[in-house]
Amino acid sequence: MMPTYLADHVEQNNLQGQLRYTLFVGASSGADTENRWAALDMIERRSPHQVGKNIAKGINEGRIKFFDKHLSMFPVDLVYGFYTKDRPSNKLDVVCVEATDILEDGSIVPGASVGATPELLQLADKVIIEVNTALPSMEGLHDITMTDLPPHRKPYLIMDVEDRIGRTSIPLDPEKVVGIIHADRQDQTLPNSPADENSQAIAGHLIEFLEHEVKHGRLPQNLLPLQSGIGNIANAVIGGLGDSKFKNMKVWTEVVQDTFLDLFDSGKLDFATATSVRFSPEGFKRFYDNWDQYKGKLLLRSQQVSNSPEIIRRLGVIGMNTPVEVDIYAHANSTCVLGSRMLNGLGGSADFLRSSKYSIMHTPSTRPSKTDPHGVSCIVPMCTHVDQTEHDLDVIVTETGLADVRGLSPRERARVIIDKCAHEVYKPILKSYMDKAEFECLRKGMGHEPHLLFNSFDMHKALVEEGSMRKVTSF
Amino acid sequence: MMPTYLADHVEQNNLQGQLRYTLFVGASSGADTENRWAALDMIERRSPHQVGKNIAKGINEGRIKFFDKHLSMFPVDLVYGFYTKDRPSNKLDVVCVEATDILEDGSIVPGASVGATPELLQLADKVIIEVNTALPSMEGLHDITMTDLPPHRKPYLIMDVEDRIGRTSIPLDPEKVVGIIHADRQDQTLPNSPADENSQAIAGHLIEFLEHEVKHGRLPQNLLPLQSGIGNIANAVIGGLGDSKFKNMKVWTEVVQDTFLDLFDSGKLDFATATSVRFSPEGFKRFYDNWDQYKGKLLLRSQQVSNSPEIIRRLGVIGMNTPVEVDIYAHANSTCVLGSRMLNGLGGSADFLRSSKYSIMHTPSTRPSKTDPHGVSCIVPMCTHVDQTEHDLDVIVTETGLADVRGLSPRERARVIIDKCAHEVYKPILKSYMDKAEFECLRKGMGHEPHLLFNSFDMHKALVEEGSMRKVTSF
Repeated sequence: MMPTYLADHVEQNNLQGQLRYTLFVGASSGADTENRWAALDMIERRSPHQVGKNIAKGINEGRIKFFDKHLSMFPVDLVYGFYTKDRPSNKLDVVCVEATDILEDGSIVPGASVGATPELLQLADKVIIEVNTALPSMEGLHDITMTDLPPHRKPYLIMDVEDRIGRTSIPLDPEKVVGIIHADRQDQTLPNSPADENSQAIAGHLIEFLEHEVKHGRLPQNLLPLQSGIGNIANAVIGGLGDSKFKNMKVWTEVVQDTFLDLFDSGKLDFATATSVRFSPEGFKRFYDNWDQYKGKLLLRSQQVSNSPEIIRRLGVIGMNTPVEVDIYAHANSTCVLGSRMLNGLGGSADFLRSSKYSIMHTPSTRPSKTDPHGVSCIVPMCTHVDQTEHDLDVIVTETGLADVRGLSPRERARVIIDKCAHEVYKPILKSYMDKAEFECLRKGMGHEPHLLFNSFDMHKALVEEGSMRKVTSF
Repeated sequence: MMPTYLADHVEQNNLQGQLRYTLFVGASSGADTENRWAALDMIERRSPHQVGKNIAKGINEGRIKFFDKHLSMFPVDLVYGFYTKDRPSNKLDVVCVEATDILEDGSIVPGASVGATPELLQLADKVIIEVNTALPSMEGLHDITMTDLPPHRKPYLIMDVEDRIGRTSIPLDPEKVVGIIHADRQDQTLPNSPADENSQAIAGHLIEFLEHEVKHGRLPQNLLPLQSGIGNIANAVIGGLGDSKFKNMKVWTEVVQDTFLDLFDSGKLDFATATSVRFSPEGFKRFYDNWDQYKGKLLLRSQQVSNSPEIIRRLGVIGMNTPVEVDIYAHANSTCVLGSRMLNGLGGSADFLRSSKYSIMHTPSTRPSKTDPHGVSCIVPMCTHVDQTEHDLDVIVTETGLADVRGLSPRERARVIIDKCAHEVYKPILKSYMDKAEFECLRKGMGHEPHLLFNSFDMHKALVEEGSMRKVTSF
C-alpha cells in the first residue's frame, strides 16, 4: 500500500522527478507498483535486482542508477555499511515491511517473502509495517537469522534442507516503528508461463543426465537438493521431475513457483526451502486453500541463507538457470544483452552456479530476432558480458542436446558445446569460427582458449546490422 | 625425487611423447621438475594451476590439455568423481606425496604444502611416499580435514584463523602404499621479487584506504584476516603493513611468502594460516633456523579449507590479488592474455575475491610492450577474458590511485576507475571510449553498461598491430 500511496501522491501533485529515492528491495518487489514509481521518475538508485519493464527502461535510458549484486552478498554488504557510507547516519531512512502478524514481543512475521528484510530492518532508522490481513498469519513458515559482523560471524549449522537454525519472526525495536498500515490485498503476480516443446526437450536431456549420474554412483537415488530458476524451461524441468522415477526429492532454491506445488502434490517432493514463494494468482489460491497440507513442508529463509554459498556447497545442490547466452568455452551472460542492455540483474544465478555440485545452464539453442525465427544463437563465440565463468559451469543444455564439460580443456569444451548444444543453423558457423581461431592461435603459441579476438562479436554485429546472427560472413 | 626419476627415465630411453600422464597437482608443483616433464612431452592433461615456462608453452601450443579450476573446488570435484568419470576404476592410478614424517598409525605428516593431498590420497589406487629428511618433521604444523560427500558434509567450524578442526596428519590405508622413497632436498624456489616504486605507491593507497575504513568503523583496529596473492605488489603491500600502525594482524591466505616472515618479526602479525608456505631459498633457511619461533603462529590446511568461500566470507577476509587487466566496469582478467594465452591459471583468485569482505585488485596502471614502456594499459574498455565479475570487486588500485566502487552503478564505476586508476597516457583514450559508448547506448535505450561492442577490443588490436595500446584511433 505504502508504495502505492507514494505514487498517488507524486501523480496527484505533479512531483515527477522531484521526489526521488534510493530503493533497496529484498529481491524484486511487486513489479506493478515499482513500474509506477519508475514511470513517475521516483527512483534515483536501485539494487540489487528488479523486474518490470519501466524499471529496465529507466535503467537503460540512464535515469535510474542500478547495480546488480549477488543476492547472498547484498544484505551483508548493506550491514557492513558499504551502501550507506556516504550518508551522515549510516542508516536507511525508512524501511517498509510487510507482515502477516505482529507478535507480542514486537517481532514481525513476514509474508510470502523474506528476502533481505532482516538486514533492512537492522539498518533502518524508521520502520513502517504493513499488516496484510488478506493473508493468513504465516507464523511458523519462516526460519529467521540476523547478520553478525566479522570477527563475530558464526557458521550456518544447516545440514539438511529442513533444518531450522533461527526464530519464526524478525525481531524489531518498537522505537523504530513510525507507522502501521492496514493492507488487504493479495500479492500481484503474473500467470505461469507454460512449457513449450523446446523446454520439454531440455527437461528430457537433463533428467536423462541425472539418471546417468545416479547410475554411476555420483548422485543418490533421491538426487540432491534442487535449485531451479524462473521461466518456462525451469517449469518444464520441475514438471519433468514430477513425471520421473525420482522420489523423496528436496528443494533448496531462491524462489518457489507453481510447478513445485505440482511436485508436492505428486508425492515426490519431501521438502522445499527458499527465500520467497511467487505463485501465479491461481497458485496462491491453491497454496492458501491447502495451507495445512503445505505448511509443514516449506520453510522460508533470508536471501543471505537461501543463497548462501556455504550451504549450497555443503548440501551439494543441483543448480539450474537460464542465461542470455553461453559461449563455446562455457562462460555465460545472465544480465546484459549485447553487453549493455540490462534485463533483470544477476539475482542469485552466480550464488548457485558458483557453488553448486552440478552447475547447469539451460537455454533454447536460438531465439527469434525481428526477421528470423532463429536470428539469435544462444551459443556464441564469446559472451558479450560474463556473469558466470568457465570455471563455474559443469553442464550446458539446449533442446538439441547436453554438453557435459566437467574436466575438459577449453578446446575440448568448445567442440562438445558446439556439437551438442548449437542449433543446426549455427553449427557450421561456430565450427568455422573455432577452426580458424584454433589455427591462428596455436600458430602464435596462444592457443589455450583460441579466439579470433577482433571478430569474436561478429555474430552479434550481424544481428544488429543484418537482423540475424546467421548473416555473419567473417568466418 | 619421483618426478625427477621419471623424467630421467624418459630422457635416457628416448620416450618423449610416449610416456604421458594426466597430472593433477595440489596447487602448483616445483616448477623445475614439471618444466622438465613438459619439455619431455610427458603431460597429457593438467589441472588445476601451474607455474613454469615450458608448461605454459605446452598448453598454449596445444600439447597439454589444461583446465584451470577454483582451487577450493578442484579437490571436491575430484572426490565427486568428476575428473575420473571416464576411467574404469574411478581412481587415480598413482599418487606421489611428500612426507616429513610417517606416524605409527601409517598417517603422513606433510611438508610445506598441503594443497589437495588429502583428497588425492582419498582417490588414490596406489601411493608412493617420499620421505624428505632434508626437512624437520613438521608434525603439529597442519590442520588436516578429509572431504565428506553430500548429503553428509558438515560445516567447517572455524571462527578464527587459529582454530583447529582436524588432525595433524593425513590418514592413509597402508595397503595402498607401493613404495617409499628417501629424499633429501630442499624445496626448489625462486628468489623474492623486490618491491618497485609503483608497488610502493599501490601499497600506500591501500593502507590509506584501510585506515579510512577503520576510522569509519567498518573495520576493527587490527583489521580483519588478510589474504595476499603473489608477486611484487603483494610483497610491497605486506611490507607496507609492517611499517603501518596496525597491530595484532592475522592472515588467512593461500600461500605464505617471505614478507610474512618480516611481518612476524615486526611483532605485528599474530597468526597466519594458508595451504602452503613458499619462501625464497633464504626465506626457507630463515624459517627452518627459527622453527621454534614460527611454528606456534602458523597453520597449514588443505586448499579446500584455506580457499573455502564459507570461511572466507565468515571471517570477512580482506582479499588482494593482481590481474592481467581490469576493465572500466570492474571485471577482471586473471588468466588469459588477449583472451587466449594462458599464464598460470585461476588459482584461488576467485575463491577469495568472490567471497571476501573487501575484494581488491591491485595492478600497475600500465605494463611495457616491446616498443613502448607504457604500451599496455591494465585498465581497458572490456576485459578479453573475465575471471572476476563486476559483481565481485570492491576496490581497484594502481600506482595512480584507488577506485572504491562499492554501491556504484556501472557508469559511475567507469568514471571513477578511469579517473583514479588509468595512466595519464590512457585517461583521455578511455574517457573518449566511455563518452562515445554512453552517447550511443543511451540513445538506443541500452545504456546500463555502455559499450562500443564492436570496438571494445580496439586497444588490444592497436597493441597487436601497432605495438602499443595508445595507438588506438577508433575512439
